[in-house]
Amino acid sequence: DAGRINYLKSVGFADANCCIYVPESVTPENVLLIAKTVNFSKWNKAPLAGYLVEGSNGEYVLLSDEERVNLIREARKYIPSDRLLIAGSGCQSTEATIEMSKKMAAVGADAVMVVTPGYYRNAMNDSALIKFYAAVADESPVPVILYSVPAYAGVDLSANSVAKLCLHDNIIGIKDSGGDVCTVLNFMWKQDIIVKHTKRNFVAKFALMVHLTEKSLGNRSFQVTAGSVSVLVPALVVGCVGTVSALANIIPEVVCKTFSLAKCGSWDDASALNRRLIQPNMAVTSQFGVAGLKAVMDAYGYYGGSVRRPLLSIDESGAKAAMKPFLENGF
Amino acid sequence: DAGRINYLKSVGFADANCCIYVPESVTPENVLLIAKTVNFSKWNKAPLAGYLVEGSNGEYVLLSDEERVNLIREARKYIPSDRLLIAGSGCQSTEATIEMSKKMAAVGADAVMVVTPGYYRNAMNDSALIKFYAAVADESPVPVILYSVPAYAGVDLSANSVAKLCLHDNIIGIKDSGGDVCTVLNFMWKQDIIVKHTKRNFVAKFALMVHLTEKSLGNRSFQVTAGSVSVLVPALVVGCVGTVSALANIIPEVVCKTFSLAKCGSWDDASALNRRLIQPNMAVTSQFGVAGLKAVMDAYGYYGGSVRRPLLSIDESGAKAAMKPFLENGF
Amino acid sequence: DAGRINYLKSVGFADANCCIYVPESVTPENVLLIAKTVNFSKWNKAPLAGYLVEGSNGEYVLLSDEERVNLIREARKYIPSDRLLIAGSGCQSTEATIEMSKKMAAVGADAVMVVTPGYYRNAMNDSALIKFYAAVADESPVPVILYSVPAYAGVDLSANSVAKLCLHDNIIGIKDSGGDVCTVLNFMWKQDIIVKHTKRNFVAKFALMVHLTEKSLGNRSFQVTAGSVSVLVPALVVGCVGTVSALANIIPEVVCKTFSLAKCGSWDDASALNRRLIQPNMAVTSQFGVAGLKAVMDAYGYYGGSVRRPLLSIDESGAKAAMKPFLENGF
Amino acid sequence: DAGRINYLKSVGFADANCCIYVPESVTPENVLLIAKTVNFSKWNKAPLAGYLVEGSNGEYVLLSDEERVNLIREARKYIPSDRLLIAGSGCQSTEATIEMSKKMAAVGADAVMVVTPGYYRNAMNDSALIKFYAAVADESPVPVILYSVPAYAGVDLSANSVAKLCLHDNIIGIKDSGGDVCTVLNFMWKQDIIVKHTKRNFVAKFALMVHLTEKSLGNRSFQVTAGSVSVLVPALVVGCVGTVSALANIIPEVVCKTFSLAKCGSWDDASALNRRLIQPNMAVTSQFGVAGLKAVMDAYGYYGGSVRRPLLSIDESGAKAAMKPFLENGF
Repeated sequence: DAGRINYLKSVGFADANCCIYVPESVTPENVLLIAKTVNFSKWNKAPLAGYLVEGSNGEYVLLSDEERVNLIREARKYIPSDRLLIAGSGCQSTEATIEMSKKMAAVGADAVMVVTPGYYRNAMNDSALIKFYAAVADESPVPVILYSVPAYAGVDLSANSVAKLCLHDNIIGIKDSGGDVCTVLNFMWKQDIIVKHTKRNFVAKFALMVHLTEKSLGNRSFQVTAGSVSVLVPALVVGCVGTVSALANIIPEVVCKTFSLAKCGSWDDASALNRRLIQPNMAVTSQFGVAGLKAVMDAYGYYGGSVRRPLLSIDESGAKAAMKPFLENGF
Repeated sequence: DAGRINYLKSVGFADANCCIYVPESVTPENVLLIAKTVNFSKWNKAPLAGYLVEGSNGEYVLLSDEERVNLIREARKYIPSDRLLIAGSGCQSTEATIEMSKKMAAVGADAVMVVTPGYYRNAMNDSALIKFYAAVADESPVPVILYSVPAYAGVDLSANSVAKLCLHDNIIGIKDSGGDVCTVLNFMWKQDIIVKHTKRNFVAKFALMVHLTEKSLGNRSFQVTAGSVSVLVPALVVGCVGTVSALANIIPEVVCKTFSLAKCGSWDDASALNRRLIQPNMAVTSQFGVAGLKAVMDAYGYYGGSVRRPLLSIDESGAKAAMKPFLENGF
Repeated sequence: DAGRINYLKSVGFADANCCIYVPESVTPENVLLIAKTVNFSKWNKAPLAGYLVEGSNGEYVLLSDEERVNLIREARKYIPSDRLLIAGSGCQSTEATIEMSKKMAAVGADAVMVVTPGYYRNAMNDSALIKFYAAVADESPVPVILYSVPAYAGVDLSANSVAKLCLHDNIIGIKDSGGDVCTVLNFMWKQDIIVKHTKRNFVAKFALMVHLTEKSLGNRSFQVTAGSVSVLVPALVVGCVGTVSALANIIPEVVCKTFSLAKCGSWDDASALNRRLIQPNMAVTSQFGVAGLKAVMDAYGYYGGSVRRPLLSIDESGAKAAMKPFLENGF
Repeated sequence: DAGRINYLKSVGFADANCCIYVPESVTPENVLLIAKTVNFSKWNKAPLAGYLVEGSNGEYVLLSDEERVNLIREARKYIPSDRLLIAGSGCQSTEATIEMSKKMAAVGADAVMVVTPGYYRNAMNDSALIKFYAAVADESPVPVILYSVPAYAGVDLSANSVAKLCLHDNIIGIKDSGGDVCTVLNFMWKQDIIVKHTKRNFVAKFALMVHLTEKSLGNRSFQVTAGSVSVLVPALVVGCVGTVSALANIIPEVVCKTFSLAKCGSWDDASALNRRLIQPNMAVTSQFGVAGLKAVMDAYGYYGGSVRRPLLSIDESGAKAAMKPFLENGF
């Protein structure tokens, strides 16, 4: 309903402590273990605005449809009602995505985050993506958050598309992880697409999305969030409202601290802290991937556990290498 | 059983008419329509070795698990028993792929073609892919054909991996569509990485796979097939055994003719005919995609029909443009 | 001498007006025209720290060796002694680059900016690039500024290499234009390669270079400058000291204003102004290139002029399209 | 004059021994050493049609303008008059390329091979490249051979452009090394270019160039040569006339043998031999580059020598690794 959407549209602006830092909840096949172990109890102590369950680090593509819905139902039990449960509901087909969004809303999701469908990336031009998101948002009982992650999905949602989609009442924001990938690659498979400079420049795209959605809406209610904590402070300086970050699974309090320093205007301190996050973030994303993230979670007293096939777990020396930048940067 | 595998291992070598030209059966949601209309009855008139059902042009990622199995069951009814039904059984997770392969075998698939899982492409190194395919081949009741299609899956299966996987008794060949995409992107800007030449050169990779699998096995029983008909004759000259081709949905008799001319040693005629296939093939693959393929099928008296969302159908002018290279090259 | 180097090392930190905003002086073949016309007299009114002559927009690769030296000699006449003349002295071979640097220093360059040699980009790994820059810096009579611009040179200088090169007494900073291009391409489809995250994320690379050079030197004297004004404010927030910007050829006072707002701590105003620069900057770089930059210069009362072959001038409709984002954003 | 052009146009078709196998003459800074040592005397024993001097392996970009002309003058002394001396005359600017072509013709070049200018690859669309080549061919006293080598130049000359340029009387052929690189990369920097499938598929592009130039001219006089010996036999089967190959520096007699087997119709034997060339060719091109090529030349009794800075020589273990695929494949 409109009240819920408005509430969600205002999340992130309320005060300096209420950001959209949402750890991507990992260990999909061990949802009960998550609950039994310390994960949510520890995460809940940090001033996080909510949680993304079934992001890329949540291995959602390795779950069956039934498992995906069950994971949301279980996670809800451990997430306080004043924190958001954002459910990753993306599928390859429009129909399947709508169906999944409905099911996830029914078991407690406050919003759904919908990744760009990527198998037919050639064909996923602006027009196809706009129609896809509009169709999903028309049918979803809860607000939709766009999710652009070319590294995984092979598709980059353009700033111009976002400027149009922000006009839909049920689309409230975007997680853009363009920088985790080559955001340009998809132009190769395309036929006649104008390449936009902003696609090649992570933070410039953030800034442009803030600029264009503000133009479209006449206000700043559309929420652009950084998909990588490595650029959290630069993202905030250009008008983003927060981040959805892999690193928040491990050191949520540091991520929150970086955010709140910036929001209080302590840009130098925020920036100095942010610079120390880059190498750790690289370790658990581009360098060692989901398996690395889980290994470091284990080391930090969380439950990380194993990855599903075909992903491979990392060995002890890999785990040490993934830990190294955390130690070297004082975490 | 061993008999079946041996039979399948020998397919493609029997005689000049028995190739692995398999049209990728399209119109997944209209399997009954396929049957009712002329598709199989027309295709069956061409000397095709068999059919791939649920390849990329078959929109398999837009089907539910249930639909996928049903489509194989129905297709079997219209495929003569002396022609192969190859079922595309790939999923993102190892477990799901095994499960799907079993179900498809149970409803009549002679072999399964398994695409590389691609969502976590960063993590899909040689080791991960070899373990994935070995695990699937261990459990699949029917022979496994590898399928490398970087344009869609974002992953390129290396010639070295193929040289290892060919040793598995239940892995009998590969469809390599490397050239439908730039498989090479990673070689740019690189700092300290040994570039694998074969990745950059479609036909060279075919040749190298023939070379390396022959070395591994001591014979030429591993079947390398070209994923693009544009290079069918060069592929045959370097030792491939056939092609699995989108174009065979539309002009199967011409594809078969090109093949048989080459097999009879009429290389010049084969090559001249092959050169005329390049632009038509481009039209229904890289230029206009699945929607273009279906539109041209309609024009050629087959049932093409619509595409599933989020794919967009092409309009009339697009359909004309897709047809143009067919007409200009005399088809 | 050491005094000069120390002077140059401190440039950019002196005060908020003294930044390394340097327009890349265009119109190489018309150096006298530059002088006769308004360019330098207008540029000199803005609080620019200096000028880069013979950057990529200066078409340096289209000049003969003799023309390159002459252009620096002439430009010096119109640049006040308290402003830097930075000369682009890069060539493909180490020896030629050293020779050119010496000649440019002899005719008045305060420093040289040396682009990565890119023809043999495959071979330009960290080791080759470090040796190249060290050899040039050993011999150059004036300080060396590194220049990484993958869009043109095809090579990306890694943050780790910069962390080593900053220890050389005669290397004082870097212009990094990584984001003007996809620096990331190599991470795709890769099999067994550790991806360096910084390459994929323009501003994150800035931050990491600040972090690592500070670690190497024990101070912040190494100057990291943004190669794209689209991310000037985010670059400053992570510790960069300025920008070398194509846009400063056209609206230098606006670029300087953005910089000084940020340096004074007016981050919101700086950021709002910066967001309006993105589309104009795209127009004169990635969208319309050197020819577009020159056309807009003409429109703004500067002398732009024609481009050298094989570059093509843009026609009137192209010039209008290049102007459009300037007008739409109020410049 | 027309006679010369017609002569050159017919080269490659005369008989099975007269191919365009031209080793790219290496060791640019040691041209006298080349002469004094065995190189030309050994190469001249193989039935090569001629020599390319100052290709990419000839390190032409690391030579001064004067050295470039001198190298051609010296090489002519050791090349029999019935063998072609093809001189690499490409520069970044149109004017410099014309000037260089004239000078090289004056000292004995039979034809010039002109690489695509690549620094401003963004701007090098079909129109710019067609104008560039037409301007050079208008002024060159000797016939022009197009040279597309995206791996180095960053630009891919499209089949459609070649179909137009073949109509110029002074343009007689192309060396296409598209497959040595990602032929697709340049689309990233472009704005509005239609991506053509053939660009992604090395041998398919050969075939399409043969097809389109035959259409343009009404005959097969335009000579398409393979830039990589890895696909020599497939290239010949689709209508190419030969190859300009790095490997011919080392084992010219084997390259010639592969060619003549194919021309005599012994396709199976030709193909079997060709398959053994792939790994050795990879070693001296993509894997170990110019330095590797020179090291292996040394090992085979040629004079290879060192590379110019910034290229790095390979060490002993590198040289052994470069040799390994030669030994393993029986050369």
